[in-house]
Amino acid sequence: MNDPQVEILLIEDNPDDAELAIRALKKKKLANNLLHISDSEEALEYLFGEGNNNYPKLILLDLKMPKIDGIQVLKRIKGDPDKKVIPVVMLTSSKEEKDIVESYNLGVNAYIVKPVQFDKFLDVVDQLGMFWLLINQPPK
Amino acid sequence: MNDPQVEILLIEDNPDDAELAIRALKKKKLANNLLHISDSEEALEYLFGEGNNNYPKLILLDLKMPKIDGIQVLKRIKGDPDKKVIPVVMLTSSKEEKDIVESYNLGVNAYIVKPVQFDKFLDVVDQLGMFWLLINQPPK
Repeated sequence: MNDPQVEILLIEDNPDDAELAIRALKKKKLANNLLHISDSEEALEYLFGEGNNNYPKLILLDLKMPKIDGIQVLKRIKGDPDKKVIPVVMLTSSKEEKDIVESYNLGVNAYIVKPVQFDKFLDVVDQLGMFWLLINQPPK
Repeated sequence: MNDPQVEILLIEDNPDDAELAIRALKKKKLANNLLHISDSEEALEYLFGEGNNNYPKLILLDLKMPKIDGIQVLKRIKGDPDKKVIPVVMLTSSKEEKDIVESYNLGVNAYIVKPVQFDKFLDVVDQLGMFWLLINQPPK
């Protein structure tokens, strides 16, 4: 699983949401190097695994997940002196101010509330994909 | 200058670049509540001025500026327990990896290299404006 080519790491336990996000990114040809991991514990093992020098251009992170929730995953990434430079965008259904403020306090790069409407969800993923993959300049 | 309505704070000493960015944002009707401060010292005074509870949705920050450079401005904002939650996007002509990595290490939310080409510059400001003003959810 240690593919140095991974550009987007999607950490999302809901298969429907993951499929929808991947579909939207594929439409814009932005999903060629996407790795989807549904289990947050596995995602951390992947990121912090020995010899993994993979710095994705973007980590898309769900918030509410079993075992290790998104806040804990974020804390781990942004608390690491090397991995903290990876852009992490929350993509969550939580609109709670507590979650938003905590995410920013921990250093999240952006926070996106998943639109309930199908079309709007595709739009949002489109825009975020274009911004983070084509416009933002991540560290090498 | 303490307008609680400010949505975008543009800190940019180059008048041509500032004008271009504002023009692109206006085109998308995203510049209604934009405040442009060309002097970085003044920008910090504005942000940290007593009684300023203004949390813009976005700070667009140039890197190379006289007096206090963008890195120092970023350090000040992201080192502040309250203001650190404000999204800060670097908009700079520097492609130097050192600047990119230092910005991410200090907690920048995104880093954008100003395209040299006029049309491309407008495009990039368009996209960033839409992402940060319409899609990203900042703290209240």
